[in-house]
Amino acid sequence: MGDTLLIPRLTIIGVGLIGGSLARALRRAGAVGEVVGCGRNEQSLRRGVELGVIDRYTSDPAAAVEGADVVVICTPVSAMRAMFTAIRDHLAPQAILTDVGSVKGCVVADAQAVFGSLPERFVPGHPIAGTENSGVEASFAELYERRRVILTPHVESDAAAVDRVRTMWQCCGAEVVEMGVRHHDEVLAATSHLPHVLAYTVVDTLASMDDRAEIFRFAAGGFRDFTRISASDPAMWRDICLANRDCLVRTIDEYVDNLQRLRSALIAGDETTVFETFRRAKHARDNFYRD
Amino acid sequence: MGDTLLIPRLTIIGVGLIGGSLARALRRAGAVGEVVGCGRNEQSLRRGVELGVIDRYTSDPAAAVEGADVVVICTPVSAMRAMFTAIRDHLAPQAILTDVGSVKGCVVADAQAVFGSLPERFVPGHPIAGTENSGVEASFAELYERRRVILTPHVESDAAAVDRVRTMWQCCGAEVVEMGVRHHDEVLAATSHLPHVLAYTVVDTLASMDDRAEIFRFAAGGFRDFTRISASDPAMWRDICLANRDCLVRTIDEYVDNLQRLRSALIAGDETTVFETFRRAKHARDNFYRD
Ligand SMILES: NC(=O)c1ccc[n+]([C@@H]2O[C@H](COP(=O)([O-])OP(=O)(O)OC[C@H]3O[C@@H](n4cnc5c(N)ncnc54)[C@H](OP(=O)(O)O)[C@@H]3O)[C@@H](O)[C@H]2O)c1
Ligand SMILES: NC(=O)c1ccc[n+]([C@@H]2O[C@H](COP(=O)([O-])OP(=O)(O)OC[C@H]3O[C@@H](n4cnc5c(N)ncnc54)[C@H](OP(=O)(O)O)[C@@H]3O)[C@@H](O)[C@H]2O)c1
Repeated sequence: MGDTLLIPRLTIIGVGLIGGSLARALRRAGAVGEVVGCGRNEQSLRRGVELGVIDRYTSDPAAAVEGADVVVICTPVSAMRAMFTAIRDHLAPQAILTDVGSVKGCVVADAQAVFGSLPERFVPGHPIAGTENSGVEASFAELYERRRVILTPHVESDAAAVDRVRTMWQCCGAEVVEMGVRHHDEVLAATSHLPHVLAYTVVDTLASMDDRAEIFRFAAGGFRDFTRISASDPAMWRDICLANRDCLVRTIDEYVDNLQRLRSALIAGDETTVFETFRRAKHARDNFYRD
Repeated sequence: MGDTLLIPRLTIIGVGLIGGSLARALRRAGAVGEVVGCGRNEQSLRRGVELGVIDRYTSDPAAAVEGADVVVICTPVSAMRAMFTAIRDHLAPQAILTDVGSVKGCVVADAQAVFGSLPERFVPGHPIAGTENSGVEASFAELYERRRVILTPHVESDAAAVDRVRTMWQCCGAEVVEMGVRHHDEVLAATSHLPHVLAYTVVDTLASMDDRAEIFRFAAGGFRDFTRISASDPAMWRDICLANRDCLVRTIDEYVDNLQRLRSALIAGDETTVFETFRRAKHARDNFYRD
């Protein structure tokens, strides 16, 4: 009976928001047999068992992957290299290895360094879904519904492995697309990493002002939405921003150029440039969202 | 019976989101007798009557203020000077004049220029409430509940007039505070005008990229919240940003300095600075909101 399951044994390394939600969604879909969790913090792993997210756990990555059909690394990107090293000699021959890291260039480079060359059954992935909360308590089965998941398979990737990872995410309600590693990191720098940097910086700027207590008191509803992403885990975002710094710095520079153009228009009283910038932005956003 | 009402006759000039919501809230509170609307677009004024927001309307500001107890100017800030000019010789002797403009320095300067000196019964105001939508259709009675309204009375302001405007907003469920004009414009540059400029600029930057269609496709949930304010009316925000450009440009400069510091830290691989910036921001935001 276990043989008819998509993933008889699933190992999640890093049972937080992303890993926990994946386990919940796959369980709800009836796609997994046993779910093994792995992490450093025993208390949160125990909580994962209590919540029904995982069936059992170990803090030893090598033991965690023993006999697993699919291994998903869901730690911060800065920890992935150590995880690859820890599991390298313990993966079952047919095991499929994938990850959820927000940057793909660094993860692929880490895998290459640790495994010598990219394993055929390694399929890098990134679900475009998340919230500003972290940890297994914040996980929920619906996180990936109608969200996109990007896979960045390499030329040597085994087609059956890519298919299984694709099906795994589809079972969670996601739409799966493929993309090159480099292109992924450029697109995500613009749509995700830049906005986080800007939101963190705006809150930090306001918080350093003399009348900061008053300033936050008079922030309206729009400010709360605008700064919501600055409540995200600072360690995770430090890792992401540093791992993707080449693309991110280029995007920051493009952004600052545009901001300086707007600043000049404000000083010059150039109503047209100010209006056209705002109008183009509203038009682009309205086109892409129907709130 | 009319005499026991807070405002027997109220005139709203500019019956949009802010003016329409004020009229609805006061009506719900039983604080107004007749509500007279004034604007340029007859169709939207007629819609205001249909929706029960106003009782009657005229497109002539002079006629609209005839016999009014309280006149609230709710047009974009760029139109306020023309409104002051149009109504100056038609206000009833006891009429109280107030406004809702998002910048106070320019409104006070306009009033001074038109009236010669600031009228005793003029009480500048600004409700810290709004949405990204505009027009009378978007108005709703609850907009001001548990929101703050800032009044910036001048030294010659009549105490009874200030009291009446304060009570008017309290009837809408708002908390009223007083502040100096200059201070208001500095605080709002930081909490409202800067975020709007940043959000418009980020969307415009992304929309000008070669792969913009793909870029918006891969924007996650956080991006939608982050950019919501960029769906606001570009003409209104052009007016606000230009009217408050001195404060706004100073705030933009402070912001860009901080962003460049972060950029340097990214290039240098300075994990501590990146982490500390993000951590301080998360800490400040978590302290001020409990989502
Ligand atoms: N949140 C998002 O919006 C989002 C979206 C897409 C992708 N991602 C990616 O998903 C991954 C996880 O993010 P998340 O939001 O799920 O974070 P999370 O809720 O903090 O979960 C991360 C998990 O990894 C473990 N972990 C943390 N540091 C570790 C380390 N140094 N070594 C080994 N394990 C460690 C933690 O468990 P222990 O403390 O028990 O070790 C924790 O359970 C990251 O790579 C992130 O880039 C995040
Ligand atoms: N939206 C916010 O978040 C917010 C928050 C606090 C304060 N405010 C301030 O509130 C005021 C109104 O904003 P709103 O959001 O209510 O905008 P809105 O929904 O667009 O309403 C503005 C109204 O003013 C009239 N109007 C527009 N341009 C005019 C002009 N040149 N001359 C005369 N009337 C004109 C319009 O009616 P006609 O087209 O019929 O003339 C419209 O009904 C602005 O001063 C704004 O700074 C806005």
